[in-house]
Order: sequence, then structure tokens, then C-alpha cells
Amino acid sequence: MVDIKPTIDGVTGFRVSGVHAGLKKEGKLDFSLFVSDTPCTVGAVFTTNTVKAACVLVDMEHVKISRDDIRAVAVNTKHANACTGEQGIANAKLMAEQVAAKIGCEPQQVLVLSTGVIGTQLPMDKIENGINLSYDALGNDWESAAKGIMTTDLQHKTASVAVTLSNGRTVHIAGASKGSGMIAPNMATMLGVMVTDAALTAVDAQKMLSAANDVTFNRIVVDGDMSTNDTVFFLANGASGARLETEADKAAFQEALTALAQKLAQDIVRDGEGVTKFVTVAVRGAGSDDGARQIANTIATSALVKTAFFGSDANWGRIIAAAGRAGVRFDPDQAVLHVQAGEITDLEGGAVKLFENGTPTDYSEAEATAVMEHAAFVVHLDCGIGEGEATIWTCDLSYDYVKINGDYRT
Amino acid sequence: MVDIKPTIDGVTGFRVSGVHAGLKKEGKLDFSLFVSDTPCTVGAVFTTNTVKAACVLVDMEHVKISRDDIRAVAVNTKHANACTGEQGIANAKLMAEQVAAKIGCEPQQVLVLSTGVIGTQLPMDKIENGINLSYDALGNDWESAAKGIMTTDLQHKTASVAVTLSNGRTVHIAGASKGSGMIAPNMATMLGVMVTDAALTAVDAQKMLSAANDVTFNRIVVDGDMSTNDTVFFLANGASGARLETEADKAAFQEALTALAQKLAQDIVRDGEGVTKFVTVAVRGAGSDDGARQIANTIATSALVKTAFFGSDANWGRIIAAAGRAGVRFDPDQAVLHVQAGEITDLEGGAVKLFENGTPTDYSEAEATAVMEHAAFVVHLDCGIGEGEATIWTCDLSYDYVKINGDYRT
Repeated sequence: MVDIKPTIDGVTGFRVSGVHAGLKKEGKLDFSLFVSDTPCTVGAVFTTNTVKAACVLVDMEHVKISRDDIRAVAVNTKHANACTGEQGIANAKLMAEQVAAKIGCEPQQVLVLSTGVIGTQLPMDKIENGINLSYDALGNDWESAAKGIMTTDLQHKTASVAVTLSNGRTVHIAGASKGSGMIAPNMATMLGVMVTDAALTAVDAQKMLSAANDVTFNRIVVDGDMSTNDTVFFLANGASGARLETEADKAAFQEALTALAQKLAQDIVRDGEGVTKFVTVAVRGAGSDDGARQIANTIATSALVKTAFFGSDANWGRIIAAAGRAGVRFDPDQAVLHVQAGEITDLEGGAVKLFENGTPTDYSEAEATAVMEHAAFVVHLDCGIGEGEATIWTCDLSYDYVKINGDYRT
Repeated sequence: MVDIKPTIDGVTGFRVSGVHAGLKKEGKLDFSLFVSDTPCTVGAVFTTNTVKAACVLVDMEHVKISRDDIRAVAVNTKHANACTGEQGIANAKLMAEQVAAKIGCEPQQVLVLSTGVIGTQLPMDKIENGINLSYDALGNDWESAAKGIMTTDLQHKTASVAVTLSNGRTVHIAGASKGSGMIAPNMATMLGVMVTDAALTAVDAQKMLSAANDVTFNRIVVDGDMSTNDTVFFLANGASGARLETEADKAAFQEALTALAQKLAQDIVRDGEGVTKFVTVAVRGAGSDDGARQIANTIATSALVKTAFFGSDANWGRIIAAAGRAGVRFDPDQAVLHVQAGEITDLEGGAVKLFENGTPTDYSEAEATAVMEHAAFVVHLDCGIGEGEATIWTCDLSYDYVKINGDYRT
């Protein structure tokens, strides 16, 4: 079992900060900087949206050139720098140059992230102000760094984990994320920055990030949208002096990284726009893992299912109907559907069986409602036709989601 | 130009009724019957959900056996007869038998439709009551027949059209539909019954219905869900004595049928759950018609886009981001986005250009908001890369959608 802490503890050779650059109102933190004292290898995952923000396009280049030499990640909020044309590209490059000048490296050793409203140009005076202030504030204040990347998030999101290697040495992994609206499979308006003081090759950093990402950040759904800016970085600076020398070390490190990413991803769902319920959709016994994932995604994205979650309504009919339109093999006569309080996907004593043999069971509506009134519950669908499995984390669709997104820009 | 009337006029040889069978509370109409005095050819389109209601399964058989011999369509509300196992199949068959006994035909000449909550068995005493009452009430009261098939619809939906053939004779087409929640491409919790007194072969009836359906009922989106019960029937009894003898007659009839289906489909969107805006999404210049349709569907299904519609927010960024994740060729640098009041897809003087050359224009936010405050407006996206076109009709996502669907069953 991996012990994930919500605070940051022990990761060596990184300094971070979050400051108020003047982008947001009322002194809110709106600009963050993550700096490594020495060059890092990097893994990166970017949005698959064909409309990519300027910062994403610039970062894709920088990662290609400097995958063994990254020194810093700078993040601004309020403006996404997406759909900003050539001026947007120039601004993203300028932002990297200014950070590089401050810390003394080449511009391509700096990654830049922007999040916020699409289509406005970065106010470069405020960005420069943010760079200066955040550089001066560099230290170990991960809470401020995590707050400085938030948009409509209500809570900052940080986590850390220690891994003891077979030679007795300890390495650390730490991270921060932000999310809120536009959260979907294949990422979202979400940013993640994870760092480690273990020494990894760039190939391993990428491989490990991709593996972790596939079962964590790519398994969360708030509203099914996908943004122009979604990015996760994983930087390894080797400052602990420890390498992952054995396969067992690599496996333990991967497990810890995945658990850390899972925590940061789940926190995005918990803090999704207008979210009142944290729902785990566990699909088992599907024709394949891909099929299970498709069914879980369709359930988790259905507006009808999500409004029923909001209303604590055990509306198994909408869940089964969503599974039936997922476009993969599904036979209601073979399926068994339970709901259960909490977040554990294995069925326990308190699970309520809603559906079996193609029809609803004689379950107690009061018991089912009681399960769904919990702040966290599991929808467990066994398709009964194979070995395919997938778990997706999602939420309900509430009045507040509509309120927040009905007038986000005003 | 086809002249579609909202009332029913002139269709010969059909008798209809809508009655209160006791399924709904407070004397609301909840059961409808559509009877032809003579056998009809039939076209049918059913849900593609792998979870199909019992009535759909029974009707698929009846259409196969009796595609030249259909006499009646009976519809109950309140219970969808979906996920009801063998008992559900037996009940659907019994419903058809009881209607057949009343009107004097074989059970397989009767089609049965159910709509409402999934998973409860039909209360057969009330169904029998509905059959008796609706049989006694048969006449020309299409308004009651259209009301008797409603679930959460607020307005009944009827339409008719006359077609003058090349030999000077006139044939009529009439129809009723119901919709509301779970409205998506590939149909929804929607039922449609269209009838004509023209004489058509079963092959032509099916071909014409499929052609009309593809650009009407399959082009509406309320919430992106798809139900277990979606069905559209098209019955032709030939009572006018007129056949479609020329290709011009067939084309004129197809045009009228499609226009009728479009009216019935659009009325479903206008009356969608919690809808405050009727939005036409017109995608032009895509790589292919399928690509255009995929982009239009992704825009029309995006919760972020739909909540912005609700807020009269010209949030072109969400629209462009949705187009970018549609999974087909799309280049923001080539795209041009307008919004325009009304329902006409051709751009007119009042259109506001929001986006061009990969960036927003310097449009007036006040003007754009003014367009989107209209009860009906058009989102016009020219992709600039080909000849592909598609038009989808959709709506906003409001507080009331969440309210209606958060506690539908209580």
C-alpha cells in the first residue's frame, strides 16, 4: 500500500512559489513557478484536441529539444493563451525567455503553461511581474504554488509520496494539479506538475508518466469536454543521487507515481464545478478492457445519469440505457448492477443490487437512495460476458454546474 | 416550399384518439390509438441501443411479418416496458392481442409503443382500460392522440401537409411526436407516428421514412442520451386512391414527408426538458458530410457549450474547443464562426463574426450577447477545408433540466 500525503515532504532540489501577478482580482494567487536547481529529464502528456493552446505548441517543441535538460515550469492563470494566433506563440516564447533569463538557462529549458479563458492575449506586463515576483518567492511553499495555478477550483491540490528503494535509499515524488470544468477522459482543462528527486532517463520518465496517466488523469470525467490546454509534466532531477537499479525498484516507483497521480486526479473530480457527489464507476466482466472503459465513460458522461446522481435517485434504467448505447458488446440479460457507499470497487456487505437478469431486483428504494445520498458511492456494473475491466471517477451534474458555466466569463 | 400545418387536415381512412386510462394522475391523457380502416404498408425506425424495450422487440417482429398489413398503433405512457424480461414481452404481445381483438385483425397487424419509466411492468388492467376507452373514442381528434403519448412534454406535437400530384390529385401526410429528455442523434425517448393516405409499397414507405429520419429525427440533440424505446412509424393506407406514379411525384412526396418530420423533430427540441433556447448548429466546409455531422454533434452535446447558450454567452472558445475534439479533421486557422438570430442557416446581415484566422475577431460582446439572448439563434461554423455540411438542432442546458432530471421518478 502506498502512503500518499496531501502535503509536500522531502523532495530535494526543487524550489517552487505561487504569487499574485495582478491577473486575477483581489490579490488572489495567479502565477506559479517550479524550478529545479539542476537539469531534469521530463515526461509530458498533452491534450489530443486538434485546437492546441500556444503554450502547448511551444512546450511540445521544448520537450523535444530538452527532454534531458528542463529547468523550470512557469504557469499563469486567467488567460489560456489558446486561439491567439502568432501573437500567442510569440508571447508563450517570450514568457519562457524571461523565465530563462531569471534563472540562468536557455529558453527551451523552460516549459510554460497557461489556463483560463480562451482567446485573449497574455498581458505580458503582468506576466513579467509574475515571473519577477515568483522568482523572488522561490522556496518550499507548495501550497501557494498549487493555489497559483487554480482557475475555478475551490481547493488547491498537492500530494507527495516517498519510495524506499532496494538499496535502502529513499526517493520522493511530489505534485500539484488543477482542474474544475472541461474535465473528460483524455484530460481536460487540467494541469498537473509532478516532480521527483530520483534519477530517471527521459525514456523512463515518459514511459512512467504515460502509464500513470492512462489510469488516472485519463480516467476522470466531470463534463465530458476536453480543453485546448490540458498538460501533465513529470520532471526528474536526480538530486537524491538514487537511481532505480532493479526491476523491483522500478515497479515500486511506478506504483507510487500512479498512486500520486490518482490522488491528484481524483481531487480534480472532488473539486469539479458544482460537484456534490464523488462517484466511482466500476465496470467489470466486459468483452475487453477497452469495451469496459467505453461503457464506463458513457455512463459517466450521461447528463441523465449525472442528474440522477445529483438527486440521489437510483435510476438504474438510465445507467443500463447508457451502457446499451456505448457502442460495444453489452447484453442486459447478463448484467448485474450494484450501488455501494464509499470508494472501494470490490463489492461489500452494504452493496444494494439494483438490476439482474434483464430486470430490476426487488431492492428497497429507501436503501438505494440512502447509498446515493453519501458524498461518495460506487456504481458497480458486471457485464457478465468477459474479463474486461475499467474504473472511471466522476461526479454529479448539479444546479451549480449550470450556474458556474452559464456565466463564467461575466 | 412545403406548407406544414400544425393541425391535422384531410388525411383519409385513419381514426385516432387519446384517453385517460388511469396510468397518469389527475385525469391526464395517457393512452392513444391510431387505427387505419384498411391495411397499411409500414416503414419503421427503431432505437440502435442494444438495450431495447419489449415493445420494440415485439414491433420489430410485427413489422417483419406484416409490412403490408399494419392496422393500428397503440401507445401507452408512464411505463416504458423496458428491462422487464419475459413478462414484459408477454405484456407487449397481450397489448397487441387486445387491440387486435377490438378492431378485428391479427395481433401481428398491431404495433405497440410504450414510453415512460424503465423497469416497471405494464399494469395490464389499466392498459386494457386504455384500449377499450381509446377504441370507443376513435375519431379525428389528433390533438388528444398527440397528448396521450406525452411524458414530460409540455406541448403536444402534431403536423400535417398536403401534396398535389402530377395528375391533379391530392394526398395527405399527418403525424404526431413526443420527446423531451434523452433526445440525441440516432433518436431518443422519442416516438413518432406519421401516416399518409397515399398508396406506397412497403419498400417505398421504408425508404422514404429512412431518408426523412436521417436528416430530421436523427439530427436533434437535447442531452445526448439515447433511449431504449425510440421509434418512428410511417403508415400508408392508400385511402386516397392515389399512387406516386412519377419520379416528380415521389420527390415532392419525399420533400413533404421530410418537412413534416423536421417540424415534428424540431418541436421535440423546442419542448426539451428545461429548454430556453432553440439553437441551430450549421457546420459548413468540413472535410465530409460525416465529418461536419460529427463536429455539429460534438458542439451540440457539449455541456460547456450548452450552459453558455443558457447564459447568452458568446463563448466561441468552447465551441471551437468542441470542434477540435470531435475526432475529425479540423483546423482552427481555416475556420470562421458566426452567430445569428433566428433559424435560417444562410448568413444574413445581422450575423456576428466571432472567430477567424485562428483568433477571435474584434466583435462587440454586446452585439454577440444580443444575438444569443434570442429564443432562437444559429451557430454557423465554416471549417474552410472542404464541402461537407450538416445541420443539427439543439438547445441550451438550464437549471430546469437539472431540476427535472434530478428527481424525475419522485
